[in-house]
Amino acid sequence: MKIDAVDFFYASMPEVTLEADGSQDALLVRVTAGDHVGWGECEASPLTSIAAFVAPRSHGVCQPVGASVLGESLDGPEDIARIARLVARNSMDLLQAAHTWSGIEIALWDLLGRAREEPVWRMLGYAESHAKLPYASMLFGATPQDTLERARSVQARGFHAVKFGWGRYGTGSAAEDADHVAAAREGLGSDALLLVDAGQIWGDDLQPALERLPALEAAGATWLEEPFLPHAFVPHAELARAARGVGIAGGEGAHTVHMATNLIDYGNVRFVQIDAARIGGIGPAKEVADHAVASGVTFVNHTFTSHLALSASLQPFAGLADHRICEYPVEPKRVAEVLSVQHITPDHNGEIRAPDAPGLGIDVDLDALRPYLRTVDIAIDGVPVFSSPLPVDGPPKVNAIS
Amino acid sequence: MKIDAVDFFYASMPEVTLEADGSQDALLVRVTAGDHVGWGECEASPLTSIAAFVAPRSHGVCQPVGASVLGESLDGPEDIARIARLVARNSMDLLQAAHTWSGIEIALWDLLGRAREEPVWRMLGYAESHAKLPYASMLFGATPQDTLERARSVQARGFHAVKFGWGRYGTGSAAEDADHVAAAREGLGSDALLLVDAGQIWGDDLQPALERLPALEAAGATWLEEPFLPHAFVPHAELARAARGVGIAGGEGAHTVHMATNLIDYGNVRFVQIDAARIGGIGPAKEVADHAVASGVTFVNHTFTSHLALSASLQPFAGLADHRICEYPVEPKRVAEVLSVQHITPDHNGEIRAPDAPGLGIDVDLDALRPYLRTVDIAIDGVPVFSSPLPVDGPPKVNAIS
Repeated sequence: MKIDAVDFFYASMPEVTLEADGSQDALLVRVTAGDHVGWGECEASPLTSIAAFVAPRSHGVCQPVGASVLGESLDGPEDIARIARLVARNSMDLLQAAHTWSGIEIALWDLLGRAREEPVWRMLGYAESHAKLPYASMLFGATPQDTLERARSVQARGFHAVKFGWGRYGTGSAAEDADHVAAAREGLGSDALLLVDAGQIWGDDLQPALERLPALEAAGATWLEEPFLPHAFVPHAELARAARGVGIAGGEGAHTVHMATNLIDYGNVRFVQIDAARIGGIGPAKEVADHAVASGVTFVNHTFTSHLALSASLQPFAGLADHRICEYPVEPKRVAEVLSVQHITPDHNGEIRAPDAPGLGIDVDLDALRPYLRTVDIAIDGVPVFSSPLPVDGPPKVNAIS
Repeated sequence: MKIDAVDFFYASMPEVTLEADGSQDALLVRVTAGDHVGWGECEASPLTSIAAFVAPRSHGVCQPVGASVLGESLDGPEDIARIARLVARNSMDLLQAAHTWSGIEIALWDLLGRAREEPVWRMLGYAESHAKLPYASMLFGATPQDTLERARSVQARGFHAVKFGWGRYGTGSAAEDADHVAAAREGLGSDALLLVDAGQIWGDDLQPALERLPALEAAGATWLEEPFLPHAFVPHAELARAARGVGIAGGEGAHTVHMATNLIDYGNVRFVQIDAARIGGIGPAKEVADHAVASGVTFVNHTFTSHLALSASLQPFAGLADHRICEYPVEPKRVAEVLSVQHITPDHNGEIRAPDAPGLGIDVDLDALRPYLRTVDIAIDGVPVFSSPLPVDGPPKVNAIS
């Protein structure tokens, strides 16, 4: 097969708010190779990621992503890895390239799996897609009482693991945060897993993170996520040393394999959270999963968008029975909900699995998505270099590279 | 002052080749605050970097760079640092943001320096702008004889330090590379500093780098630059341990302060090379310079474009007398040459300095640049979100944020 076309579909809610909710828009990628089609998603700024695909080249190692993808042959996973190396080399100085490539890489796995009638996880070498325990991600409430009620309501919906984060956490006093954490535990009951997400709030400042540990330990929190900036390994390691009962988690921002493995090797995180739609796709995420296994660290997906992205982020650790927890988008915005025909829903045990179906096992519903689609037009010197494809009419078209 | 407008000017050669020559295009940034104007440059893909400024927001921490900049107050260096923190927070998930912000940050320093009639290096706390020894960057020749002739010719132009790199270096045998390195030394004579740049060619594979060490040591090379991917600290540190006579250099790709300081702390580089136009501007580059001083590591600028970018990248270590070597764009393409009115040229000792003039001390020549300017138009849902400003007509306009 030969990669004939890469098409980007940008969809969003009519109004995008300042909430830390990544499901408010989506950048879908459709790859066409002969008679075969695959779909992926970038967890990234849509316009910027499209620009990185079509930008005029600046020099030999600042080429647009498209230059390394269009026309390439695709006959097996080794071709995906080969094209990944091309992109890394030719777009070395184009920072956004990793985010753009991630969605394409995912679509290539989907396409290949559909062509071979195999799930992606099997092509990765796994014999089975193991059950995962989905955790629901929630924002902390405005008051501890509010947090308590949120915890009760999500517990009533049957989730055995819940993550609270963002909101005012980390911005006020440690005592105030302690009240929220205790309220979350009270609302969940003693059995559920409680996870806490600080959203990088302390930069590289160790002290405020240390001050939160006693409350987290008292509440039996499983992890404290992203206390610091993702490259700040020193405070990560110092906090990990101090936090015996609570694991440190992080990695969602990793846009290279080394960035994630460094967080394990130098930052001593106990949980590494990888978004396949940012790190360069499923292949690099699997490399991190292998490193996590070798290091005795638990791999977790990061997913806050659609079930297409969820399936993609589950594949890299689908076959790791001991890596049980997975992030599950519990209240996605409508655009992220309608974009897939299938949804990955908890079974009677409250568990989910990467689909046992060709590719990612998720079909995109362009028709349902139509009201949410936004058009992008980019011209250089008056010449169009990108125009959003129409959702259904005619054959997909190859985007021009200038 | 209040930041009223940020305008981007994209210029390029009529033909951009696949050479590893970053001077083939430029993205200039003009910031206007009241009656004051400052200029900066992004060392980055122009279209992608513009998109990161105007992209519709995806959520609270995936906002366009413009959202954190336009309308902000600017009364001193502390405001530049404050806006930098805003950008880092609000654009946490927009990978390209660091490259876009770099040019703006540089322009803010220039504007502030012009308003205060002070050079930027003085606002950074330096008492003096010390002389630097510029090194000329060259590509290796196609044959060792070719490399020899290039070395002779650049030596005849009066350069006391020369860097060879890229070309076929690292792609063939170690013996072949040894011939090139020996030829470079022969052509330069025994006194000149010889630097070698591997351009990340070995990924994270230590062995081929180890095999190049004997020839580099025999030729008295001062450093081996970028043997590996910038996040691959383990092979960096192992090579540094093995390479007693040759220092390891790297850091040009750093887009956060921590990325650069990690390369020092974990990668054990002896020379840290920072491009202010990528790392987030002059402030972050100065933070790396401070860390280099504290770590006994030598700070070096990375500059392969214009003299506006050169001045910006010299500022962070202008006052460090012992950090002597600086990169100097020796054969920039015409577009990078004409864009500045002033040029930073070697004095009778063959040395250069950051200008002792307000701001960066470099004026942009929009008139000379006119034949190289390219227009960019971006529309979302048919509504323009960016149109390239005209070079000279009327007051600068504020770019809309959708």
